[in-house]
Amino acid sequence: MSVFGRLLGRRLATTEEAKELVGVPDGVSVFGLDALGSAAYGPEAALTVLIPAGIFGLRFILPISLMIVGLLLLVYFSYRQTIDAYPSGGGAYVVAGENLGKNAGVVAGAALMLDYLLNVCVGISTGIGALVSAIPRLQRFTLVLCLGVLALLVVTNLRGVRESGVLWRVPTFSFVMCLLIVIAVGLAKTLSHHGAPPSLQPIPPPIAGPAVVSIWLLLRSFASGCTALTGVEAVSNGVQSFEEPKKKNAKRTLSVIVFILALLLAGLAILVHAYKITATDPGRAGYQSVLSIVTSAVMGRGIFYYVTIASILMVLSLSANTSFAGFPRVCGMIADDSYLPKAFSLRGRRLVYTGGVVVLGVLAAGVLVMFGGVTDRLIPLFAIGAFLAFTFSQAGMVQHWRRTGGPHSRLYLSINAVGAVATGVTTLLVFVAKFTSGAWITLAVLLSLILLMRGIHHHYEEVAAEIQVDTIAFEQVDEPPLLLLPVARWNRASVTALTFACALRGNVRVLHVQCDSGDEEDMEQWRRMLKQAAERSGVATPELIAVRSDYRAITGPLFQYVLRAEHENPRRSVAVLFPELVAARWYQQALHNYRAMLLKARLFFGGRRRVAIVNIPWQLSKLGDRGGEA
Amino acid sequence: MSVFGRLLGRRLATTEEAKELVGVPDGVSVFGLDALGSAAYGPEAALTVLIPAGIFGLRFILPISLMIVGLLLLVYFSYRQTIDAYPSGGGAYVVAGENLGKNAGVVAGAALMLDYLLNVCVGISTGIGALVSAIPRLQRFTLVLCLGVLALLVVTNLRGVRESGVLWRVPTFSFVMCLLIVIAVGLAKTLSHHGAPPSLQPIPPPIAGPAVVSIWLLLRSFASGCTALTGVEAVSNGVQSFEEPKKKNAKRTLSVIVFILALLLAGLAILVHAYKITATDPGRAGYQSVLSIVTSAVMGRGIFYYVTIASILMVLSLSANTSFAGFPRVCGMIADDSYLPKAFSLRGRRLVYTGGVVVLGVLAAGVLVMFGGVTDRLIPLFAIGAFLAFTFSQAGMVQHWRRTGGPHSRLYLSINAVGAVATGVTTLLVFVAKFTSGAWITLAVLLSLILLMRGIHHHYEEVAAEIQVDTIAFEQVDEPPLLLLPVARWNRASVTALTFACALRGNVRVLHVQCDSGDEEDMEQWRRMLKQAAERSGVATPELIAVRSDYRAITGPLFQYVLRAEHENPRRSVAVLFPELVAARWYQQALHNYRAMLLKARLFFGGRRRVAIVNIPWQLSKLGDRGGEA
Repeated sequence: MSVFGRLLGRRLATTEEAKELVGVPDGVSVFGLDALGSAAYGPEAALTVLIPAGIFGLRFILPISLMIVGLLLLVYFSYRQTIDAYPSGGGAYVVAGENLGKNAGVVAGAALMLDYLLNVCVGISTGIGALVSAIPRLQRFTLVLCLGVLALLVVTNLRGVRESGVLWRVPTFSFVMCLLIVIAVGLAKTLSHHGAPPSLQPIPPPIAGPAVVSIWLLLRSFASGCTALTGVEAVSNGVQSFEEPKKKNAKRTLSVIVFILALLLAGLAILVHAYKITATDPGRAGYQSVLSIVTSAVMGRGIFYYVTIASILMVLSLSANTSFAGFPRVCGMIADDSYLPKAFSLRGRRLVYTGGVVVLGVLAAGVLVMFGGVTDRLIPLFAIGAFLAFTFSQAGMVQHWRRTGGPHSRLYLSINAVGAVATGVTTLLVFVAKFTSGAWITLAVLLSLILLMRGIHHHYEEVAAEIQVDTIAFEQVDEPPLLLLPVARWNRASVTALTFACALRGNVRVLHVQCDSGDEEDMEQWRRMLKQAAERSGVATPELIAVRSDYRAITGPLFQYVLRAEHENPRRSVAVLFPELVAARWYQQALHNYRAMLLKARLFFGGRRRVAIVNIPWQLSKLGDRGGEA
Repeated sequence: MSVFGRLLGRRLATTEEAKELVGVPDGVSVFGLDALGSAAYGPEAALTVLIPAGIFGLRFILPISLMIVGLLLLVYFSYRQTIDAYPSGGGAYVVAGENLGKNAGVVAGAALMLDYLLNVCVGISTGIGALVSAIPRLQRFTLVLCLGVLALLVVTNLRGVRESGVLWRVPTFSFVMCLLIVIAVGLAKTLSHHGAPPSLQPIPPPIAGPAVVSIWLLLRSFASGCTALTGVEAVSNGVQSFEEPKKKNAKRTLSVIVFILALLLAGLAILVHAYKITATDPGRAGYQSVLSIVTSAVMGRGIFYYVTIASILMVLSLSANTSFAGFPRVCGMIADDSYLPKAFSLRGRRLVYTGGVVVLGVLAAGVLVMFGGVTDRLIPLFAIGAFLAFTFSQAGMVQHWRRTGGPHSRLYLSINAVGAVATGVTTLLVFVAKFTSGAWITLAVLLSLILLMRGIHHHYEEVAAEIQVDTIAFEQVDEPPLLLLPVARWNRASVTALTFACALRGNVRVLHVQCDSGDEEDMEQWRRMLKQAAERSGVATPELIAVRSDYRAITGPLFQYVLRAEHENPRRSVAVLFPELVAARWYQQALHNYRAMLLKARLFFGGRRRVAIVNIPWQLSKLGDRGGEA
């Protein structure tokens, strides 16, 4: 098995597709890690905004969390209906596109893509950031660690979705269990101590805040807390990845995810309030994450604390995985509609959209390198994409029910309408609240992406119109093509290429670059050999052309000759034949055929690109009869 | 002009080569920045080792510096002789290879390559490290800044050597002038104050050291200080880049560089001793570089101080440029001898060894990312490569004089012999002194590189022997080749490819993947159309083959068909024709021909690689008659 083979797993035939589907438990890991992981930064984000309000701000955390959970439930009911109505998956992109027009679909799709990308970066870097806080010796390797996790995710996802499910099940389970235990124990203590439980560890003191806070601060806190909802749409994008009955399994998965997330958000809000925990400034010394404070307050700093922190770290960095399940699928669908390069719609050897996985990996790596693996500044940006997608999706569903009608459609419509308005208002709120801290960047990137997608679509349509034919009308076949074979010296590879050319019975011209006139004798000998060989085989003698080069350049003069030949033969096709050494091993392959590559590149980028390029392989030994993997 | 064009400058013809040569002033910048820049870290490295000895260690800095300057002069005379004896350039690699055998050459070449690579990393990151110490707000962008400088160097060097000379002349001049002024003023003050000049700024107090130091500490200090000599060999590698008279200009350039460097090293040692300056620990708060302490002690913290620091920073990061002049040349020569992929010996559009520049950039980027842009740990490693090269070069020169003889050869021989022994002992010393702090890594990397180079050479020799032929003996041309043309739908591109195939008079088979039997009717129509078209043009009717696919896979069934056809026709060549859409703009090109790419990749990696691949371009409009850049 090759290196690729070992790394990426056996190639899968399309017939094996059924085995790659996931059930509810794996579905929760594959499509839910992102949503569940946001419990680790959503409440923290809301509390961080409330820091200036000090202890006084704490009284607002319960209503704010309730609003967020309420919004979560609205989104939940809305997406349940989406899964029923659009079992082929696609979420916001499909729903908006089908109901509100292609342009709305493109906007929703772009928003989703951006959201997925930012989720990868923020997930990985938050996770690694927490890890290096725990083990400061690793600080200098922050970026390397981030890129390592990213590489792991890329490779795992190139292996196919099912393996990811199995791999991620343990951390998800451990994360959910730990947090639920913290919440249960904490609630029990709160009840038994009449709402004021003692902390097992000292809690960082809140700053002395004012006795009044502005509505604006509360709204900003709510807007930041809404990051807790990101990732909820993932299930509806991947309905087709579920085992039969697909709809039912997808809805169950969504229910499990949302139920747990709501429990976590509500439970954490109650504990934060009961234990009087305020956030600490991430930029200052003595920073501790809210989850760390809550866990140590309720359970103490024992083994359980470290298990909890470890699973939080793992889930945070692995929540990026949800994007690797969603991004390639969305890109694939968008590419099917010609709004992205068709490459995104091709499935690779393990039945995943290889292009999407690789592109997501490269883009995320770029963002991570750009920010040195520290992406706390990106957190404010990335809720916008998600909420924009929510809004478009639900607005689309409203239109869907108006169009299709049917029993209960009025009820369904009103659920989606409420959801659309709520998420729309939230989107606007998030956008306004975060405009100066970076939401404008989101807007700029979104607009560029939308323009790019429309440009791609336009190009594909133009091309389709241009190359369209009604019937197979041959152009006139006047003369045999001109076959040009550059030869530096005769060896088995060039002789094979010559044989191929002669068998085609085109007009064969052997080109040899002559650096100084001393070669004249050699040329005469070549001419004789060519004549003899051709006569023996009963084919026309190939012409031998000396291409002059005053300096030691090789590709330049050949390139010029090809251009001239093409110009002088406007009615004939011209092809250049490249003998190509095929090595036994791929790493040996890297040692050969450079001049050919150079000339090909020049013909392609510098020429008129009307010349056919023919690669004629000649195998080096040791390849033997390895054969195809038939 | 294309994006590439704007970035990399006009393509240069080989005839313009002469204009790219450098004179002495540009030579000092291009080949000397590295050597001169080491004045900024050599003395510092020696003094850092002496920190534990406190003020007592200072009395040894003068003898240590004198030894280093002495070694520098030995190396200088030795390299002067090398330039005379080997005006074609190549330095250690050529000299060792010609005189001590190919294996010695390979070791010297590998040592040089490693030294060049580490010099890029250390130069850039030391420079940026100093910059971010000056402007702490930039700290979080350390890596991005390093990669930015690296990208700048790569692009500048792809534009050709001459431009680099002009670009770097200002910082080099400013660096040398500032330091010489500091030294002159400092010496004047020292003399006028009878050896104990007052400092204009408080000097960090030395630690209270012991009254006795070990020889071992002094030797380690000397070994660290030897980093000041790195880069001296660059001139002898690039003699061919100088204007005529090449030898004379190269030697003059070397003299200027060494003279300035010796002045700087000696002057700094005297000032450090006179002002009683010890190094500060780079890991601790309050760190300040030795050059910064010296400059502020002599000149105060005025505008001159900041100009000096700025030029040090620039020279440090730009000293990496010396490697970009040297590394590609050395790689090119090694590749000419088949010890590295031939790609390294190809000149690009601006007459530089594009491959070497790009590879150096990629490797340096990898090291920088791996260390997050902070490479202080690399400093101990990178003198070893340079000194190993020095030693091999001079040992080679000894052998050279023994072989050639001639007048004064005895004198020349003894100069080189002394140099060889001195640098050989120093190499051993540096290696032993730094073994635990990382010299073993240097050794491991060197050994791997040497093994790799020998492996490459072995492969090239095997291949040459295998493909060698004595005469052009055609294999029998039995039957016309089998030309396979996969067609999904008929459009101008596929019709063009069909026309090309029919003009070749091979056996043409049109392959169409049929997913369900409903296509049967279409196939009949295609068959009729093909027949009519062929009859009109007077060629044989192409066969139409339906390739069955049970699922929606396209490339899989085509791949299988090609393998089968190849197997069933062992005596014929088989070619697959790929219609290729050629877009007007390169970025549009990225949108097309994916399925073709996929099938090509499968034929290459998964097949027996005996099938010729024919690319038949079809140009989309707007390309017009852009033409070649003839």
